[in-house]
Amino acid sequence: MFHKEKLVRFQHCDPAGIVFFPQYLILFHELMEDWFNEGLGGDYADFILHRKMGLPIVKLECEFMAPNSMGSLLDMRLEVKQLGNSSLTIKVSAHKDGRECVRATLKVVHTSLAELRSVPFPPELRSAIQQFQSPAQ
Amino acid sequence: MFHKEKLVRFQHCDPAGIVFFPQYLILFHELMEDWFNEGLGGDYADFILHRKMGLPIVKLECEFMAPNSMGSLLDMRLEVKQLGNSSLTIKVSAHKDGRECVRATLKVVHTSLAELRSVPFPPELRSAIQQFQSPAQ
Amino acid sequence: MFHKEKLVRFQHCDPAGIVFFPQYLILFHELMEDWFNEGLGGDYADFILHRKMGLPIVKLECEFMAPNSMGSLLDMRLEVKQLGNSSLTIKVSAHKDGRECVRATLKVVHTSLAELRSVPFPPELRSAIQQFQSPAQ
Amino acid sequence: MFHKEKLVRFQHCDPAGIVFFPQYLILFHELMEDWFNEGLGGDYADFILHRKMGLPIVKLECEFMAPNSMGSLLDMRLEVKQLGNSSLTIKVSAHKDGRECVRATLKVVHTSLAELRSVPFPPELRSAIQQFQSPAQ
Repeated sequence: MFHKEKLVRFQHCDPAGIVFFPQYLILFHELMEDWFNEGLGGDYADFILHRKMGLPIVKLECEFMAPNSMGSLLDMRLEVKQLGNSSLTIKVSAHKDGRECVRATLKVVHTSLAELRSVPFPPELRSAIQQFQSPAQ
Repeated sequence: MFHKEKLVRFQHCDPAGIVFFPQYLILFHELMEDWFNEGLGGDYADFILHRKMGLPIVKLECEFMAPNSMGSLLDMRLEVKQLGNSSLTIKVSAHKDGRECVRATLKVVHTSLAELRSVPFPPELRSAIQQFQSPAQ
Repeated sequence: MFHKEKLVRFQHCDPAGIVFFPQYLILFHELMEDWFNEGLGGDYADFILHRKMGLPIVKLECEFMAPNSMGSLLDMRLEVKQLGNSSLTIKVSAHKDGRECVRATLKVVHTSLAELRSVPFPPELRSAIQQFQSPAQ
Repeated sequence: MFHKEKLVRFQHCDPAGIVFFPQYLILFHELMEDWFNEGLGGDYADFILHRKMGLPIVKLECEFMAPNSMGSLLDMRLEVKQLGNSSLTIKVSAHKDGRECVRATLKVVHTSLAELRSVPFPPELRSAIQQFQSPAQ
């Protein structure tokens, strides 16, 4: 499992003083970027800008169990739920003081941005991803 | 059904030139605001700021069928799927040139922001909402 | 002068209930897009995506005279302050109930995104821009 | 001087592949938050949410000298330029590979959010701020 702490900042919060929900998805995208760079040993900027590949999302499910306000330090977790030929389903969650407050499942597709078509994961990326697969899968 | 056109702007798009997915959720939230003000005859700012009520999300499901790039004019649609005592499930979608490209289901709860607890919809708001219920429900 | 009304939405506001200042700059960028499309008769998406041109900012000055909260309808105004060979300085402002609450000056440069160098404005774009020049200039 | 590294992320970049300028201002606000928490020994969330104080901006000047693309690691710097009774002017900048690419001056006012009026900085906050005053001032 990949872990990262993220601070709930002023910019994430709405007039009710809690995280505006699309901001959680920006934070989850940050987590994916961090995982790509630090967990998979890749270079996400190079992947997008020079190799012209991307991981566009096709399906998202998200549950919001408890609100978070500015200043909360979230323990964010990522694990691989399913790895297909060119698709990848990951589970992400945010925990505060040991309690899960948001969780999501994101299905993304390994895509050539130039040709806008799915491309199988190359072997080295595939095996790096497999190391984050949850045991039960 | 409630309709509104939204333009995909520079600010919504990522380095791949297409809408960054959390921006769709910001657009769907705009659509909900517009529906509250124009469809339900309410005043969303007054609802949040003075009546101290809110509609925090508890569950979100979203499918992304086709990407959209800057300059696309999206026909956005909202209908009520289920109306509970204090919960509301709505279906929203974005269509481009008659083709559905993103759709989502959002479950929100009518909540007192001061007390952070759910509150039944008042009768006049309930009946306004019911007018947007899809026939099959 | 180019005018456009913009609504202060939930997504623009911070935990203090007022517009988070970078959101004004996103709104001013929206205003520039609208001006390009509606005032200058151009197509901003085509300009960026197909002609590979852009208007990156080089200098920004902004004054915040009064806060705005969710639900405020802002009368946004744009006029051309100075038009150089490839640079353009515009004045933008937001007014509420006739009172100016934010104003900014933005200097942008007509730039080839492919070559990352400034390019003189073509004659037809130049003459369209000149029609929005404030009389005193 | 207060320093912090910030990564230019996917979410900050526009279809031209470079940072969308309002995102720099969000990053500068992050830097101010970090400075408040780590440099001044304060608690920004407590300051806003419980003490009901804020630092709304009244004046902003910003120069953009060079674009930054996704993956750039920015060395961000903050120093105090002027400290008044209730106003504070700070200089912030972003450097990449030793070269300054964006710099800004922000004037903020120590404000009671409940009463919406300026309040003199309390002595302990004032003396913490003074330690970041640039020598020439």
